[in-house]
Amino acid sequence: MSPQRVKFPVRIALLGCGTVGGGVIQLIRDNAEYLASRVGAPLEVTKVLVRDITKDRVPECRPEWLTTDPDAVFGEETDLVVEVMGGEDPANEYLERAIREGKGVVTANKLLLALHGPALVEKSINAGVDLAFEASVGGGIPIIRTLREALTSDWVESVHAILNGTCNYILTKMREEGASFEDALAKAQELGYAEAEPSLDVDGHDAAQKLVVMSMLAFGAKVNIADVPVEGIRSIDELDFRFAERFDMTIKHLAIGYDRGERIELRVHPAMVSKGSVLANISDVLNGALIHGRALGPCLTVGPGAGAMPTAVSVVADIVDVARSKREGEPGLATRGIQMQSRPLVPIDEVDSRYYLRFDVADEPGALATIATALGDQGVSIEQMVQEGRARAAGGAVPVVIITHTGREGAVRRAIESFAEAGFMRGAAKLIRIEDVQGN
Amino acid sequence: MSPQRVKFPVRIALLGCGTVGGGVIQLIRDNAEYLASRVGAPLEVTKVLVRDITKDRVPECRPEWLTTDPDAVFGEETDLVVEVMGGEDPANEYLERAIREGKGVVTANKLLLALHGPALVEKSINAGVDLAFEASVGGGIPIIRTLREALTSDWVESVHAILNGTCNYILTKMREEGASFEDALAKAQELGYAEAEPSLDVDGHDAAQKLVVMSMLAFGAKVNIADVPVEGIRSIDELDFRFAERFDMTIKHLAIGYDRGERIELRVHPAMVSKGSVLANISDVLNGALIHGRALGPCLTVGPGAGAMPTAVSVVADIVDVARSKREGEPGLATRGIQMQSRPLVPIDEVDSRYYLRFDVADEPGALATIATALGDQGVSIEQMVQEGRARAAGGAVPVVIITHTGREGAVRRAIESFAEAGFMRGAAKLIRIEDVQGN
Repeated sequence: MSPQRVKFPVRIALLGCGTVGGGVIQLIRDNAEYLASRVGAPLEVTKVLVRDITKDRVPECRPEWLTTDPDAVFGEETDLVVEVMGGEDPANEYLERAIREGKGVVTANKLLLALHGPALVEKSINAGVDLAFEASVGGGIPIIRTLREALTSDWVESVHAILNGTCNYILTKMREEGASFEDALAKAQELGYAEAEPSLDVDGHDAAQKLVVMSMLAFGAKVNIADVPVEGIRSIDELDFRFAERFDMTIKHLAIGYDRGERIELRVHPAMVSKGSVLANISDVLNGALIHGRALGPCLTVGPGAGAMPTAVSVVADIVDVARSKREGEPGLATRGIQMQSRPLVPIDEVDSRYYLRFDVADEPGALATIATALGDQGVSIEQMVQEGRARAAGGAVPVVIITHTGREGAVRRAIESFAEAGFMRGAAKLIRIEDVQGN
Repeated sequence: MSPQRVKFPVRIALLGCGTVGGGVIQLIRDNAEYLASRVGAPLEVTKVLVRDITKDRVPECRPEWLTTDPDAVFGEETDLVVEVMGGEDPANEYLERAIREGKGVVTANKLLLALHGPALVEKSINAGVDLAFEASVGGGIPIIRTLREALTSDWVESVHAILNGTCNYILTKMREEGASFEDALAKAQELGYAEAEPSLDVDGHDAAQKLVVMSMLAFGAKVNIADVPVEGIRSIDELDFRFAERFDMTIKHLAIGYDRGERIELRVHPAMVSKGSVLANISDVLNGALIHGRALGPCLTVGPGAGAMPTAVSVVADIVDVARSKREGEPGLATRGIQMQSRPLVPIDEVDSRYYLRFDVADEPGALATIATALGDQGVSIEQMVQEGRARAAGGAVPVVIITHTGREGAVRRAIESFAEAGFMRGAAKLIRIEDVQGN
């Protein structure tokens, strides 16, 4: 080892300095000596690109680092670019520039990766630089690292992940306290777990972005996020939780991926899972990912999926990897291993699953028979059927719940459509997939 | 990148070729291209040291690799030594030699690391080589990697781990089927989950070895394994599970570590944990580790803690790391980050915990009062006290169970001793610690 190599610090430019950026600066300062021993050289933040230079920052952030000029953070004086600003633009332009200039790149930006991940990876490989993105999925949980490193020698068959803390918090409150969706959401907003405009989270888009990022590594897949079937949790109500309990299940918002040979199956939606499964017991704002490797079997990681310090832990772990690889004179190996191709998605109608179906029907003879016949005609077989109570008043509605055996979603939907307009139906049918997660 | 570097394969000598070794050979063969792209050079097994050259091996193992001569696997023709033979000797001698010769070293040997880990790490650091040991703890689960890499920038406050699949299987059967320890053990032996001589597993020593290995990284601690308080699961019976259920808890065999400032607290024993906790729901032969980082918060990993292929996955992930670092011309950085010192252990009498105490007492007035008074005299306060039923016959015994608030173990033990010889006691008191695991 040449002493010269150790003497020169790795110079880091931070793009953005919000809560995560502040956490990164603090961790680099607090652990300076240890990090230097891991990298083989000291880490030094030298530039911080911000929009407003006068805003208050963490005390460890030196005023002379701050700049509003993007040109100041690139060029020869920067070795590593760490992007914690979020959003598609100008983050994408900045990362492309960093890669062109041969810098190591760390990003926490799931939206950017979901939209431009394959292009950024390809550019990084061609430029021989490392692009690391642990913090983009699962905050502080080493999900990306587990996929990238520990499964180096294995084949990922499936992933089942709880990737949105807001959804998980709301569903936990609904389960534990019998709260309505609206009340649980209000509580989440009060605690700062949900935005005033919560649709990115509760409609499933945030989880879908993270699933697309995971799929790059898990399945080597380039995916157009618009093609991924996504459902949120707004339609889940207390009655669904009561029935779930009755069948010894609970409801979780899952991001699911399967390797299906040529195709991959990706979907994001609420799912019923067995109460005894480990996924069922990941509560509140925690995130978790269950990865099935062909040789490994099931491997679950659970932890804080968001928050400034957990996310900063992941960013700094990436910084150490990329910095070390850069100063060893041969960067890009971690990224070079990512091999991606366009893989067709299984359309949701061709997905095989078990289903929880709930119908509000008029309390009259014949309704159950019509429903059962329609399902049978489509080849969907029924495992259980429950009609709860009787209607309180003449002409009132009662909920009917059916648990099916495994069937094709298209067939189930055709059956439901066939009696959607029947006189006994009171409102639309509800379908929640039952996910039989193996191995936990 | 100089082409010469890529051209030369990384030559691997395998010490031992049992089920894990066979799995390693298969994975290296099956994933050759991908592994080469990660390392920057092909991986080639060139030597396999075995005791019996005539024994049947996996078909991928070429006969010309096999040798019974230790000298043949060292020397200039080997870049990496991978030890999957197990046991203390001669594994220790071989690894020391590999380190002296400047080779990269990968080992799956928990016993060796628990006894000689700090010495081997120190020798590796001095020799500038990498020593990797993911497979020594938790089989295929990336526990070591999570500690080593993802927590690079964080401080580990505590670990709670299920590290022995045999114990976990037995306790799961006892919980789910009401089986006795003996019946559950017999079933585990029938399924190949337990040895004919099961004491290494069921008496807790295997888990203690793994905890000592984890503590090297988690707490930077050199520990004498003989000083770690260890209890197995032989004394747990059906009645304990029945009471656990009543208090909404279950019983798990845990390896526990806390950073207590100057000292660290390490202990291995059965513990009652809340039924809703993630640890409670890690079932059968699965292993898991819950790591609390100061910045990260709680992070749990769960997966197959043993088995040839899962363990081989971890070994090959380590091989990739060490091979890559070696051919980049600057090995040893991963190992150099491991900083260890002797840290005193908290004696078990000074541990603070809640306790489940069970006494079989004569069904006579005054017994409960004596017990309660003795605990009170020692400053141990009682949260709940349950006496189940009445004795069937005069002079018969009934179980009394007490759940304490947090108290010092020494005080609890002194209280118990003070009435151990009392006339109402039928047999010895039983103490099971209640572990209130935060954050899950």
